[in-house]
Amino acid sequence: MEQTAKVAVIGGGSWATANIKMLLDNRTDKEVFWWMRNEESISHLRQYGHNPNYLSSVEIRVPAENISNNLEEMLSQANMVLLNVPAAFLPDVLNKVPAGIFKGKKIISAIKGFVPEDHMIIGEFMNKKYDIPLEDIVVLSGPCHAEEVALEKLSYLTIASADPELATWFASLINTRYIKTNVSDDIYGTEYAAVLKNIYAVASGICNGLGYGDNFQSVLISNAIREIMRFVNAVHPIDRDIKESAYLGDLLVTAYSQFSRNRLFGNMIGKGYTVKSAQLEMNMVAEGFYASNSLHQINKIHKVNMPICRAVYAILYEKHSPHIEMRLLADQLS
Amino acid sequence: MEQTAKVAVIGGGSWATANIKMLLDNRTDKEVFWWMRNEESISHLRQYGHNPNYLSSVEIRVPAENISNNLEEMLSQANMVLLNVPAAFLPDVLNKVPAGIFKGKKIISAIKGFVPEDHMIIGEFMNKKYDIPLEDIVVLSGPCHAEEVALEKLSYLTIASADPELATWFASLINTRYIKTNVSDDIYGTEYAAVLKNIYAVASGICNGLGYGDNFQSVLISNAIREIMRFVNAVHPIDRDIKESAYLGDLLVTAYSQFSRNRLFGNMIGKGYTVKSAQLEMNMVAEGFYASNSLHQINKIHKVNMPICRAVYAILYEKHSPHIEMRLLADQLS
Repeated sequence: MEQTAKVAVIGGGSWATANIKMLLDNRTDKEVFWWMRNEESISHLRQYGHNPNYLSSVEIRVPAENISNNLEEMLSQANMVLLNVPAAFLPDVLNKVPAGIFKGKKIISAIKGFVPEDHMIIGEFMNKKYDIPLEDIVVLSGPCHAEEVALEKLSYLTIASADPELATWFASLINTRYIKTNVSDDIYGTEYAAVLKNIYAVASGICNGLGYGDNFQSVLISNAIREIMRFVNAVHPIDRDIKESAYLGDLLVTAYSQFSRNRLFGNMIGKGYTVKSAQLEMNMVAEGFYASNSLHQINKIHKVNMPICRAVYAILYEKHSPHIEMRLLADQLS
Repeated sequence: MEQTAKVAVIGGGSWATANIKMLLDNRTDKEVFWWMRNEESISHLRQYGHNPNYLSSVEIRVPAENISNNLEEMLSQANMVLLNVPAAFLPDVLNKVPAGIFKGKKIISAIKGFVPEDHMIIGEFMNKKYDIPLEDIVVLSGPCHAEEVALEKLSYLTIASADPELATWFASLINTRYIKTNVSDDIYGTEYAAVLKNIYAVASGICNGLGYGDNFQSVLISNAIREIMRFVNAVHPIDRDIKESAYLGDLLVTAYSQFSRNRLFGNMIGKGYTVKSAQLEMNMVAEGFYASNSLHQINKIHKVNMPICRAVYAILYEKHSPHIEMRLLADQLS
């Protein structure tokens, strides 16, 4: 893999902006392309070198001609594609270009979510729908808030791939003074854990909104990591240590964050907002809301005992009372 | 064990006050005795039914004659002794009474610390120095902040004993609407984990004081639980799941608490205070400070790889630079 990396980053949000910053701060020779939908953001970026909407303090040194909302143009010049749009929008975005365009390219997923309807994680989706070989897929995961990347606070990323050489290569493209990388071969476990954590962040928020305290939160989270372990061991049984940063760390950074959208969303539900009014009030969608449904559908097959996810689903989709549901849940925790 | 419980609580701090509240709110027939040193507090308690210094909103319904600073008098009427003074003071407190007074009594340790000089956890100390059979010893652990007990927020306690019947009995004396109990037979692991967590809370504080963010904190804690596992498995190898609330939950509630004295102490160290000036400024002692030294001495025997504890010891006792030590530590985490 001695070729020069030509990375197309697909998506213009805060995590994509953070990925761009890492790729640029890293000294390895590479070319970076950036696709986003919003034309105003593109003009602003070309003119001022800052993303106007996300992590706007970060200086972006991508050449003007490499930032575009022409997806095909950006993809055709790349040998690596870093996907970083919300999972719900991914099929629509990719439908804009011929499916064959991905042939021979490495795919890096930085998305944390299930593709709706298919209820697939991104690696699985790219493998099944786009015939990307598993060993050409990389999962980029945390524990990592984009905001702390902007501040250059020391963070650890997890780079998972069935091909360890590819994972190591991609790691060599993004590690910097403030980014350390852990390479893993657990592509499924890493991605599932990254998606599931958002459901537990919603659960944390609901409990907080209902008035439960830090004592209960610690019990909730220590049960949550056991749920995650049971699930990933059922779906993809390999030898893994769920206490590693990719799994437990990622859960902690999200569930204990005061700024997580998922936690905020849950908090509003706990305080009595309906799902609809919480979403309207936030003017955005919490990934954990969709993940809860997808997980529920997937788990009809695996039938893993996941009382916390079950409670969140009952509250969000079956209109159960958060108060009663969490009280019942409390009896199942230990 | 069908006798009526006569519980002497030894100590007048916030956790002891929380224990008194649980014992009184629980409906099982029992008698409660309360020893504390401070005579003014005793007068206030007898007159007003509130502890003036700790959790002072909690109503205390212990009969006036059952609150005293005469330790022998309180102990002689009890068949259970709940120890809840700082570990550093325990030998002095117990030296006030004839050693034989504990004969035939059940000992519950709610203390989280090592006895200085001996570097023993409390159960071990009572077993070795006072010949209390291991099966007469109970360890009462969290995850639980006393402040949330005062607010009657749902909390889970861990009750560990080599004698499961005794653990179950004691659990039946303190569970209430807001206290759930998990019974365990892992007396050593529970107590060690409860003590070690304070060292990691100091580490969290140091990192926070140095400017590390939430991303790093999540990596620190996911490494910490692995350190705890390695240590307790070396010291007392039994089949246990370190992700249970008694271990992981207890670590989380302390390390993520903004109010932990240990975290506050660490934070001051990270910001450049010396150990002495931090202690003077706080006007109190963080248990993690002593635990760090005792763990260091104990681990000379076990030689478990504990880079976080090693770094904290180097900073607190060998005057290493927090900045450099944490940077070196970061390279050993994953």
